[in-house]
Amino acid sequence: MIKSVTSLTNQTVKDIRALHMRKEREETGRFLAEGLKIIIDALDQGFAPLILVFGKSDDRHPMLERAIRETLAVEGEVLEVTREILEKISRKDNPQMVVAVFAQQVKSLADIDPNSNAVWVALEQIRDPGNLGTIIRTADAAGIGGVILIGDCVDPFSVETVRATMGSVFALPVVKCTREAFLADRSRWTGSVVGTLLTATHNHRTADYRRPTLILMGTEQSGLTPDIAAACDTHVKIPMRGRADSLNLSVATGIMIYAAAGL
Amino acid sequence: MIKSVTSLTNQTVKDIRALHMRKEREETGRFLAEGLKIIIDALDQGFAPLILVFGKSDDRHPMLERAIRETLAVEGEVLEVTREILEKISRKDNPQMVVAVFAQQVKSLADIDPNSNAVWVALEQIRDPGNLGTIIRTADAAGIGGVILIGDCVDPFSVETVRATMGSVFALPVVKCTREAFLADRSRWTGSVVGTLLTATHNHRTADYRRPTLILMGTEQSGLTPDIAAACDTHVKIPMRGRADSLNLSVATGIMIYAAAGL
Repeated sequence: MIKSVTSLTNQTVKDIRALHMRKEREETGRFLAEGLKIIIDALDQGFAPLILVFGKSDDRHPMLERAIRETLAVEGEVLEVTREILEKISRKDNPQMVVAVFAQQVKSLADIDPNSNAVWVALEQIRDPGNLGTIIRTADAAGIGGVILIGDCVDPFSVETVRATMGSVFALPVVKCTREAFLADRSRWTGSVVGTLLTATHNHRTADYRRPTLILMGTEQSGLTPDIAAACDTHVKIPMRGRADSLNLSVATGIMIYAAAGL
Repeated sequence: MIKSVTSLTNQTVKDIRALHMRKEREETGRFLAEGLKIIIDALDQGFAPLILVFGKSDDRHPMLERAIRETLAVEGEVLEVTREILEKISRKDNPQMVVAVFAQQVKSLADIDPNSNAVWVALEQIRDPGNLGTIIRTADAAGIGGVILIGDCVDPFSVETVRATMGSVFALPVVKCTREAFLADRSRWTGSVVGTLLTATHNHRTADYRRPTLILMGTEQSGLTPDIAAACDTHVKIPMRGRADSLNLSVATGIMIYAAAGL
């Protein structure tokens, strides 16, 4: 049943708005996705919303009708709300007319089998939500195994990251682990573990990408930490010959993923 | 001489704030860059600010002292302002403590010689300021000739684009042209003109990149327009084998630039 909500003090509306805070997302294991396109992407991949919220309108899009149907089918909540409520939920003057709450799909290292794909990527202490979302999208496009987040990373389930994934957040495993847990798991990676370092001399194109290959990328500011760099089999560098001495992290990771995958 | 400004109605402050509008940037040929790092990058490349603005502080950074000195040396204006004015200039609660106004360096097609570099990139109707800035940064890092903007593109001199370039906006030619002007200039590109199309069948890695190579990338939403696609020698595609059917434009362009440059 669709509930009509007009009050900002409605408890579900309050709960949804709280999902802008990382702490709340981590405690509830939920996250917010904005826009009908990403919600349909989720449905296509077998994930129905826990809560679906849409702005009152005389003419509902057929894809919105589908989202309503599939949310109700799994006993999710469906709310029809005012534009004012949508603006508060989205924190924007010009909000998307449909938003949804989903359950986070987070894996641990033990959940993934390195040999189930030829290439994986691990990011240490990535800080920028847009970069992380873009990398998840690239990893999905290239069909690699998944994205491993090592140490204190930006939240993969922030609204900004989810938006940048363009729906790929539902498509492949996102693993969170500490640096210690990663090092303890290192021996399961029996192919090439390839770290990208600005100080490396080996060209990224000609590295030995034995399967399963794990690509390791460091933080935007300072690259890989010494412990993680020391755990690599090889260090490579994407050559630069202009004035700029670094690439945007999502661009560098894209170049590395395509080089390692040999696509 | 350093002027101390405390009033938001100061004419120079008003002029600087107006540079957030594209129309004002185009009419004055000026743009705004925020943060000491990018200003030092500009100085290192021989570009001094027309106007330098910094927040009053008891302890000036040596790099700020350098920026003040070099701005005054070319008879630029130097303003010491209140935090309130910086917030208004930056439109942010937590503004950079130094901002500067520079002259735009825009080239036309006639200003560039295709044979002066092995690789160039042209973007048709690019819409996202962050993507454009990131592409200019990648082009600089790879040492290619320049970035050509075809048709109705986002402004390369918006604050957001300039920020994403990380200083590379000063490093290489940015050319603006209409679609008609590009087509009229087409015959000067005697190497490979390689368009990226989702419908192409040829792999981007194995294309024939004769020099000078011009890479053509289309808009985020719909790719190259038919006229521009028809003007290419070859069409290539970056292969995708996951669920996502497209890459972020700055990632795709990075992959193309590195493939064409053979770096």
